[in-house]
Formats: sequence, C-alpha cells, structure tokens
Amino acid sequence: MSQKIIFTPGPSQLYFTVEDHIRKALRDGVPSLSHRSKTFEEIFIRATAGLRSLLYIPENFHIVFTASATEIWERCIQNLVSEQSVHYVNGAFSKRFYEAACELDKQAEAITVADGEGFTTQQPHDSAEFIALTHNETSTGVSLPMEFINGFREANPHTLIAVDAVSSLPYPQFDFTKIDSLFFSVQKGFGLPAGLGVWIVNTKCVDRAKQIKSKGAPIGTYHSLPSLVSYAKKNQTPETPNVLGIYLLANVVEDMLRKGAKAIRNETEYKAAVLYQALETNRYVKPFVKKKEFRSKTVIVADCGVYTKPLTEYLMQKGIQAGEGYGAYHATQLRFANFPTHSKEQVELLVDLLQNFEP
Amino acid sequence: MSQKIIFTPGPSQLYFTVEDHIRKALRDGVPSLSHRSKTFEEIFIRATAGLRSLLYIPENFHIVFTASATEIWERCIQNLVSEQSVHYVNGAFSKRFYEAACELDKQAEAITVADGEGFTTQQPHDSAEFIALTHNETSTGVSLPMEFINGFREANPHTLIAVDAVSSLPYPQFDFTKIDSLFFSVQKGFGLPAGLGVWIVNTKCVDRAKQIKSKGAPIGTYHSLPSLVSYAKKNQTPETPNVLGIYLLANVVEDMLRKGAKAIRNETEYKAAVLYQALETNRYVKPFVKKKEFRSKTVIVADCGVYTKPLTEYLMQKGIQAGEGYGAYHATQLRFANFPTHSKEQVELLVDLLQNFEP
Repeated sequence: MSQKIIFTPGPSQLYFTVEDHIRKALRDGVPSLSHRSKTFEEIFIRATAGLRSLLYIPENFHIVFTASATEIWERCIQNLVSEQSVHYVNGAFSKRFYEAACELDKQAEAITVADGEGFTTQQPHDSAEFIALTHNETSTGVSLPMEFINGFREANPHTLIAVDAVSSLPYPQFDFTKIDSLFFSVQKGFGLPAGLGVWIVNTKCVDRAKQIKSKGAPIGTYHSLPSLVSYAKKNQTPETPNVLGIYLLANVVEDMLRKGAKAIRNETEYKAAVLYQALETNRYVKPFVKKKEFRSKTVIVADCGVYTKPLTEYLMQKGIQAGEGYGAYHATQLRFANFPTHSKEQVELLVDLLQNFEP
Repeated sequence: MSQKIIFTPGPSQLYFTVEDHIRKALRDGVPSLSHRSKTFEEIFIRATAGLRSLLYIPENFHIVFTASATEIWERCIQNLVSEQSVHYVNGAFSKRFYEAACELDKQAEAITVADGEGFTTQQPHDSAEFIALTHNETSTGVSLPMEFINGFREANPHTLIAVDAVSSLPYPQFDFTKIDSLFFSVQKGFGLPAGLGVWIVNTKCVDRAKQIKSKGAPIGTYHSLPSLVSYAKKNQTPETPNVLGIYLLANVVEDMLRKGAKAIRNETEYKAAVLYQALETNRYVKPFVKKKEFRSKTVIVADCGVYTKPLTEYLMQKGIQAGEGYGAYHATQLRFANFPTHSKEQVELLVDLLQNFEP
C-alpha cells in the first residue's frame, strides 16, 4: 500500500521524513516520556518555535495543541463566542463550523454561496463577536483570496476573526495583524499521522474567553483557552497529549524550515499551476472551481462526471491514489492534494497520466 | 533510552509488540488511510470487538474513542449530569474529575478521604444523578475494592455510575450490571503511545445525554455522546481520529487475547504480591498504602522518605526508571507501574534490586 503515491486530501501521504522520525522516536523512548518531563518540554519548544518561524507567527500569538481541528471548532465557539457568530460557508467543512455554533446554542449566521464559489465582498457585521472564515474548503477546493480575509479587520475592529486553514497550511502566509485565531490539523499539509490539531490565538482571544467565563458561562475544562494557554506558557499541555504527534510535528517543521518556507510556497504554486493546466486542457475532466481567484493551491478538485470511475481505476493501475469527491460529489469528482510532501516529480507524473488518459 | 525498563505509571513502557505493529502500520500505509474507508472500519471493528472480548463488555454497552481520559471526564459531566454529581475523591485524579464538574457549573459534591486511604462504605445519594468512582487512583496507588463499586447499584437504581479505570485496565474485571460507564486511556495498562481515550457506555447514558439536550442544555458538538455513539454504530468516528492509535490498540488487544485475560490477571497479581512483599520487608522503604484491601495491583506506591533520591539513582544505574511520587510527594515517594507489559522477570529484577539497596 505505501508504494502508491497518495493524493487524497487528508489524511494524505506522510511527509517523506516521517518514517525515519518515527524510528528515532522509538529508539529514544519518546512514547514513554512523561508529559511533565524536561524532555517533553524541549519537544514542545521545538514544535512551537519551529511553527513560529515557518508560519511567521508573531509574539502576541500563543500556540496550543488539541486532538483535531474538529475539536478547535468547538473550542472556538465555547471560548470566543458569547452570543453571536458569523460564518462564511462555501462547502461542507465551513458548514460544520457553523453547525457547531448552532449546537452550542449561539445565534449563528451563515452567509452561504454555492459549492465551487467563493467570496470577494464582506457583509457588514455590526453585532457579531466572531467571524469564521475557511481559508481552504477541503470539500470543494475553493480558497478565499487573502485580500478578502484581510479586509475584515478595518470594518470590524472589535470582532474576533478566526481562520480555518486546515488543508492549506503551511502554504499560505497570513497577515497576523488582520486575524485573531488560526488553526489546522497535522494530517494534511504537514503530512503527519492524524490525531493532533494546532490552534494559534492572540491575547484578545484569551481575554474574550476569560470574559465569557466571568459572566458565568462554561468555556470547557482542561481545554478551555485559558487552561491551554497557561500550560503552553510552561511548554506543557493540560492533559497527557499525543506526545508522539507533537514530536513528529517538531521534526517535520524543522525539515520544512531547512527547505525554506519560500521554496515550499514556490513549489506549491508551480505544482498547482501545472495540475490546473492539465485539467483545463483535458478532453474528459475540468477544474471544478471556475474562477481562477478562488482556486485552491493545495486541494485541486476535478469535475470528472462519467469518467470518475475509469479515471480513478486508471490512476490506481499506475500507482496513484486520487481522493474521492466529497459527499454527494463522490461519483462525479476527484480531489488531488498538493501538499509539501507531494514532489514536483510526483505531480508531473500525475499530469502526464491525466494527459494520456483515454476512457 | 529505550534500553531502560520503564516503571513510570503512564506514559509507561510500550507493550512489547508495539514497535512491530508500528513498522507494519507504516508498511501498510495506515497513517494515510481515510477514516471513512472500509479499511478503517475494519480496524475499528477489530479494536472494539477485541476490547469486548478482553474486558467482557456486554452488548448493551457501546465503545467510543476520545483523545484522552481527561476529555472523557469533561464529556461525562456534559452528557450525563444535568445538575448534581457526587465524586468519591481519594487523590489528585479523582479530584480533577470533581473539579471538571465544578468548572461546568454542576452542583458537585466531593466525598474525600486522605491520600493513601480508600472507601468501603457508601453514603446515601438520594438526589445525585451521577456517581463518579476512580477505581485506581494513579496519584496514590489506592484501588477501590470491587464490592464497594458494586454496592452502589442497588441503593441508587436510577443514578448513573461511572468508573475511571485509567490506570488499572485491562487487569480488573468489572461487573457491567453494576455500572453504566467505564473509561481508560491507552498509555497505561495497554502500553500504547498516548493520545487515545476509550469510553464504554450503556444505553442509559446515551438516553441521559439526549434528555439533557432536549431540555436545551448543550452537550458538546462532534464528541457529544449521541454523536460518538451514532458514528460508532457505523464503525467510524465523528472527526478524523488518531487512526494509528486505534490501529495499535486493535493489535495489542489481539496480542493480549492470545495471552488470555486470565493469564494477564494472574501475572499481575503475582507481580504485585512480590513487589509489595519486597516493600514490606525493606529496611528503607515501605508501601504508602497501609490497608491491604486498598492497595492497587497496577500502580504500587512506595514511601521512600529521604531515600527517594538515592533509590531513584541506584535503580537508574541498574537500568530501571521508577516513577516519581505525584505532586507534593515527588521528593518522598516512588511509583511503580505493574502493567501487562512489565514481565515477571522485570519485576523480579526490580524486587532483587530493592532488596539489595543500601543507601
């Protein structure tokens, strides 16, 4: 199985150094480490300092760990929303973030566009405490333009702006003066085994959580934002975490830093360009996202219609596993992850195969 | 580091087959598996069916996965307690379960005894909806006698009884007609890397959660009990879980079944007996728990006083890592895990070293 090239958008192919890091972790007894030990604290420091460098995270932002990005949706709503949240919804995952707010009894507003569409203009949000944006909609392959994300701050200076970048990081470079919270999970762009979420929050978020708590509303227990941040200041976690996951993240981030954030960005753009080009010029399949400004660089969705099954099988015969279309699109679309672990050569092979595909 | 014998009570020494299972997982591409794939569902079935056999879990109990036992404390309170909970507190971890209820604004009652003491008689709990018992207090090495746990049901037929067995399973055999909820995390008795909690609940628990929700109180989002159970019925999880962790659990449980639950139980009792015997006859150290009926079979705490540091160093020189005393006891106690991964030979070596210790 591991001989295949895996283009599913998450869990995806492991970053190519992960197996070596796992072997070293076992030799060094990492899974038996106490999460209250100095050695664990050093791993925590390596992971967070590495992320700070790779993603240009400023000092007024904290980095904390959860079990998944799904958990972060819930923790965001509990800790950052007292009553009202606004969600820009353009696919299944942005919708679930909205639904989490509904389940937690918030007055949640969804601003929705059709699948495959994106947003370019903000609505006025006079009373919203919290705006949820999904930078990269894994279900549809739509990305929000960075200018769109950055446009909220000026009109909403007191609103917390949270960005779900689950399936785009480490590719995009965010302007941290324009957002308050950013998060991802490690099994996508970072190429790690699933079971770890990373939540990046500024001090305004921590203050908001404390304020909500002071008004008598529960904000959770061990993973309330104040609890997460107070442990993070000691380079620890409130609970026994996925220690191996944090160790692997620390190592892969250092590998990525050696390669360089800029090189990763350039490569991602090159690979996305050749892949979209291959789809646009193909007789049988087309890019699902029509408008170029909304096309994700990291999750590329192909409308394959009746050719979905033959193309899946053809690629599988050639050693390539494509991702199924999401939900209702499983019979008519394929998704291709374009993550840092996918080499130029692997994407070029995929492009060649697409060009040679004859159903 | 991995050459040492690790007696810390969790994370502890890996079960001796884990490294092989990790290597196979990498060969088979387990970390890249979709959690919506048939292959994942097969792993889920192996893990839950294996646990059902090993722990004699009846059909009216569901098995669901969380990220940690700490998470299960929170989910228990959110999903099973509308207003009032009672907690039998005899150490740091049973206390944290109680504190989780306070943080979530429940009327939580703590019935507390001194560290090193246990409970034998129940209080009357006329209005409590939920009774929290910690079978094995990892901080103090106190275990609740099984008759004590089983004594609650008759007097409290409508109260949900939840048992934290984090650091005792798979050793104890519970009577599932006497309890409603049981949970553990995998980095202790199961000898797995941390990052996975296992929650076993009966249908009364699911009904309670739905009832609380129907009264308008939030019970969480993706990891509400109804959500966890409805996905478990499909052999799935609501979120992308720690797939590798569930895979390793499935395999280690199968290894344990091959050895046999009874053999594991007998070995655990033998190892505990020789270790307590070694402590009782020692000139310098003594068992912390005085009353034999409260002595944990799986976490054995030694009162070492001024000999704590020299004994730690002496054992370390001999290749044995003892666990520190918990919290305030770190300078005066040592803790020794007695988990299935700790072989008779390893425990006998520890016993010999304790007997030969001269400060």
